[in-house]
Amino acid sequence: MEEKTEKSNLLSSIASPEDVRRLSREQLPVLAQEIRETLIETVSQTGGHLASNLGVVELTIALHRVFHSPKDKIVWDVGHQTYVHKLLTGRYDRFGTLRSEGGISGFSRPDESEHDMFFSGHSSTSVSSALGIAEANKIKGNKNYAVAVLGDGAFTGGMVYEALNNAGRSGTRLIVILNNNEMSISRNVGAMARYLARILSRPSYSRLKSRTERFLNHIPLIGKPLSDAVSFTKSHIKNFIYSSTMFEQFGFRYMGPIDGHDIDALCDALEGAKEQNRPVLLHIRTVKGKGYDYAEKEPTLYHGVSKFDIDSGEPIMSGDNYSKAFGEFLTEMAQKDKRICAVTAAMSVGTGLSPFQEKYPERFFDVGIAEEHAVTFCAGLARVGMLPVFAVYSSFLQRSYDQIVHDGALQGLKMVVAVDRAGFVGDDGETHQGILDVPFLNTVPNITVFSPASYAELRSAFVKAFYHTEGAVFIRYPRGAQEELPEDYIYSENDFDLYGDEDAPICLVTYGRVFSYCCKARESLRDLKIKIIKLNKIKPISQQSVEAAFGSEQIFFFEEGERSGGVGEAFALRLEEAGYRGKYVLTAVPDTFVAQASPMAQLHKYKLDAEGIAGTITEKNSDEA
Amino acid sequence: MEEKTEKSNLLSSIASPEDVRRLSREQLPVLAQEIRETLIETVSQTGGHLASNLGVVELTIALHRVFHSPKDKIVWDVGHQTYVHKLLTGRYDRFGTLRSEGGISGFSRPDESEHDMFFSGHSSTSVSSALGIAEANKIKGNKNYAVAVLGDGAFTGGMVYEALNNAGRSGTRLIVILNNNEMSISRNVGAMARYLARILSRPSYSRLKSRTERFLNHIPLIGKPLSDAVSFTKSHIKNFIYSSTMFEQFGFRYMGPIDGHDIDALCDALEGAKEQNRPVLLHIRTVKGKGYDYAEKEPTLYHGVSKFDIDSGEPIMSGDNYSKAFGEFLTEMAQKDKRICAVTAAMSVGTGLSPFQEKYPERFFDVGIAEEHAVTFCAGLARVGMLPVFAVYSSFLQRSYDQIVHDGALQGLKMVVAVDRAGFVGDDGETHQGILDVPFLNTVPNITVFSPASYAELRSAFVKAFYHTEGAVFIRYPRGAQEELPEDYIYSENDFDLYGDEDAPICLVTYGRVFSYCCKARESLRDLKIKIIKLNKIKPISQQSVEAAFGSEQIFFFEEGERSGGVGEAFALRLEEAGYRGKYVLTAVPDTFVAQASPMAQLHKYKLDAEGIAGTITEKNSDEA
Repeated sequence: MEEKTEKSNLLSSIASPEDVRRLSREQLPVLAQEIRETLIETVSQTGGHLASNLGVVELTIALHRVFHSPKDKIVWDVGHQTYVHKLLTGRYDRFGTLRSEGGISGFSRPDESEHDMFFSGHSSTSVSSALGIAEANKIKGNKNYAVAVLGDGAFTGGMVYEALNNAGRSGTRLIVILNNNEMSISRNVGAMARYLARILSRPSYSRLKSRTERFLNHIPLIGKPLSDAVSFTKSHIKNFIYSSTMFEQFGFRYMGPIDGHDIDALCDALEGAKEQNRPVLLHIRTVKGKGYDYAEKEPTLYHGVSKFDIDSGEPIMSGDNYSKAFGEFLTEMAQKDKRICAVTAAMSVGTGLSPFQEKYPERFFDVGIAEEHAVTFCAGLARVGMLPVFAVYSSFLQRSYDQIVHDGALQGLKMVVAVDRAGFVGDDGETHQGILDVPFLNTVPNITVFSPASYAELRSAFVKAFYHTEGAVFIRYPRGAQEELPEDYIYSENDFDLYGDEDAPICLVTYGRVFSYCCKARESLRDLKIKIIKLNKIKPISQQSVEAAFGSEQIFFFEEGERSGGVGEAFALRLEEAGYRGKYVLTAVPDTFVAQASPMAQLHKYKLDAEGIAGTITEKNSDEA
Repeated sequence: MEEKTEKSNLLSSIASPEDVRRLSREQLPVLAQEIRETLIETVSQTGGHLASNLGVVELTIALHRVFHSPKDKIVWDVGHQTYVHKLLTGRYDRFGTLRSEGGISGFSRPDESEHDMFFSGHSSTSVSSALGIAEANKIKGNKNYAVAVLGDGAFTGGMVYEALNNAGRSGTRLIVILNNNEMSISRNVGAMARYLARILSRPSYSRLKSRTERFLNHIPLIGKPLSDAVSFTKSHIKNFIYSSTMFEQFGFRYMGPIDGHDIDALCDALEGAKEQNRPVLLHIRTVKGKGYDYAEKEPTLYHGVSKFDIDSGEPIMSGDNYSKAFGEFLTEMAQKDKRICAVTAAMSVGTGLSPFQEKYPERFFDVGIAEEHAVTFCAGLARVGMLPVFAVYSSFLQRSYDQIVHDGALQGLKMVVAVDRAGFVGDDGETHQGILDVPFLNTVPNITVFSPASYAELRSAFVKAFYHTEGAVFIRYPRGAQEELPEDYIYSENDFDLYGDEDAPICLVTYGRVFSYCCKARESLRDLKIKIIKLNKIKPISQQSVEAAFGSEQIFFFEEGERSGGVGEAFALRLEEAGYRGKYVLTAVPDTFVAQASPMAQLHKYKLDAEGIAGTITEKNSDEA
């Protein structure tokens, strides 16, 4: 880090974008520097997305100078790069609360500011929603601008092309800013990234175009027949050239490449884009992590970080976790079974697949942010005898719902989905919670879902999935490390386990990590006779587990997921149809989105920690008394 | 129609693709003619997809001559254009059973033939699954080919680009055949379609390329400095040219355009494609409906048809239906409320939106086969005060699950989704059933779902959605016409209606068209005292409806949808938590895919018609006696 200057004089004076527009051009680099310092300092304390925000400092300043938010609408794709935007739209004072309970969100949120257009968190949606705004502007006949800002990573997601196809057709005034982080252009990201790199490596595209045209216009014409042939060919060359970026083929005007750290160049280009009465793609080149050496050097590590030490750049690393356990195990298995392939949607590191990637590159596939494709691609692999494992965060698996039904379950082919970050995920908030996978997987015929409660169970679930289960199998596990289990608990490898006295009048039913909290609650309620039914396979529910619960007077179901469509509801129906006449109390997330806080705070809020579980049981039992 | 020749001599002799390869080149046009006659005759009897199959007769013959299925894998996108493939792979004899219960499917089905790779029905998946096969071939080191065949319509779906991006990156040997039906190229289909039309309008692309190159090589170089400039520019022009189709930008070798009705040209091109050791896109031009005048003239009408008269081409039209009622009503409403916009994913005719499109083209958006984009686009429209209505078939809405959660429900913006073809859809079979929308919508927080049982209720639901409900609203209705309701039933406009004696000991709970069958069952069981709770709003469930059922001795829930995650399960939990101690019997689709048959046969099979409902009630009551 450079020596710090007197801190945040300019930045602290900025209450709204209007104040950004009031600054002189000379003040802007100073503002940019202050923003960078604030970003590094805050994120080193709170954790969050650092590299992507450092990369868009100048772009965000330029956007707020050229456009008049909120009249003009700026839509940020994914939204994890909106920290700078937040600092310039009246949230500087509260910025220290970033990603904490009740604090500033790490993503875009309309309830935080009129300058935020959408709650965001998933990739590749911004062109679609900005196009909706642009079309509405056209219908209403107003002159406001709609701007979408997205990275090259988002271009691996199919929705972007669906939106380009529509924008290019309608010819509506829409500005799409493609923020090309040079670092993320690697062979891995796919053909599109390679293509974008090729455009970036050219001199200015527009200059090249006019130069080529001039050249063609000056070719001497020699003799009549040759002259005709030349003129025919020239017109075709022009044709090639004018439709020669993909964006022009999609009906956009292409502008760029522009240096995304040059505020003047950016402002000029944005003004130029405003003058076009049609869809424009502005291609800018930025450096992810710009201004913080460690982040520039290892932008992937600093994409999303935990707290870190500013001077050494050392992140405070967490120890073991489910992702790591999964990745190591899969790599082991892949040595024995040559059919095993690993597929990830741009989450190789996050899902723990790095060792697999390194050891078996020919069986490893990073498909980009393309969860739909990932599942159908697995179906293709499986169709000819491979054993594909798609590792994906629960929240992003939502994107594959149709493919799970149509290309997964219906085919009856063996594929395994490793559903990481299942349950509460903490400070990423609403858009990233893994509390819908159980409900939406419950709706799909013909699949199996396991919910292990330790690394050992995780391994066992994969073995079952690979060698003892038909069709598509989903194995879900939470973010972070395994919880402590009671010493006298023995995992049976059966579809469910019974822990405690079989004849106990109080029965808890649960699965996954909540089993651990149920055990702790039981421990704390020694006066009550409590047994716990721990479901290992949660879909289909084993009829024996229902029978095992049947004899109890009170059944409490605890579920770290949405109540609607969850296992607790299905279990209730089974009990009811079997003629159960006792109490049934279901504790789950009550059909709502869950805001940012630590995972433990979230478990506590929804009464799924040991204290909440014990409270629910005693409350019911003092009711009875 | 032309005079018929002696019928199906060649075709009837073909038991497998091997027989196709045995024919002389001269026999192929005769075979093609026989196939066309068989298609027209059969589909005029059975209904089905006609125009698309007439368009791929020569292509299918060529594919089976050049490739060796099933060793080489041919993956048909969507699969409704596989009739010719079926005729050439041993299914000629049974072809008359097309789309009937127990008969030949209208789509691709591995359980019908080893030549069918996947159960199919949804668009834009074939490149992903064929790439999976190609990568597996590479890993295994075999020389088999993987071929994906898809239409230009599929290129409006984002998954195709996700797959191209991956195939282009890996450089794996994969052949993608883009079947460009000239008719479907219209302004409506988007920028991509316009772009493809532009390529098609060129002379042969490869010839043009070599001609241009020759031209560039022969430009005279005059003087040293000019010569340098020229050579610099020439190299850039070549650069433009070599990356000048979108497919080349995605890393494919582009071949075409080829006349898709010239078997010789097709075979040559396919042989050429086989020689490439990398991804190839072969662009062919076909005429949808080729060989049947009526279908050539109106390919949209003959895309999917009911039975029709061959000589007049007159389809046996059905009368009124929900789609029509919806379209007319929305068009009416749009006159009064200028905020109303209509959005469809390439189903303008099917969803009844044609009158809207004609009357309000500026507020009508056909986004192509892009359900993901459609929902997020609606969020954009809604964000600035428009009132978007997305009309979509239930089965295809699955594709938008993530967007419904992330860009719909979470935003809390008012958007309305008209869910057509909800419930059993009949002869399209497993891939098109509308039996998952209720379960998957049930999992989504913060939305409302209505299930009208008549056109009048449909109108009322939209009025409620537009003016009396917050957030995203889904209104689901079945394929076909409204069912008859009892004369003494009055629709209350409340969240539910009670029909029959309030104190009746037997209570049926249902929603949508099954209400009509419940009424008929009640009518047939006059000896029993039965009341019916008809849910008008199915999410959230009104607590009063639970209370209204509570006093009964027996509650029967009837649901035309998957049992897992459906309303019947949620209702059971509510009853159980309220302490209900009577019988509860849920009749729904038992966590399975539903095969082709008529909708009434499907209702009958799952005991959801009047007979089945009455049977369930009497069975339970004779159990009791």
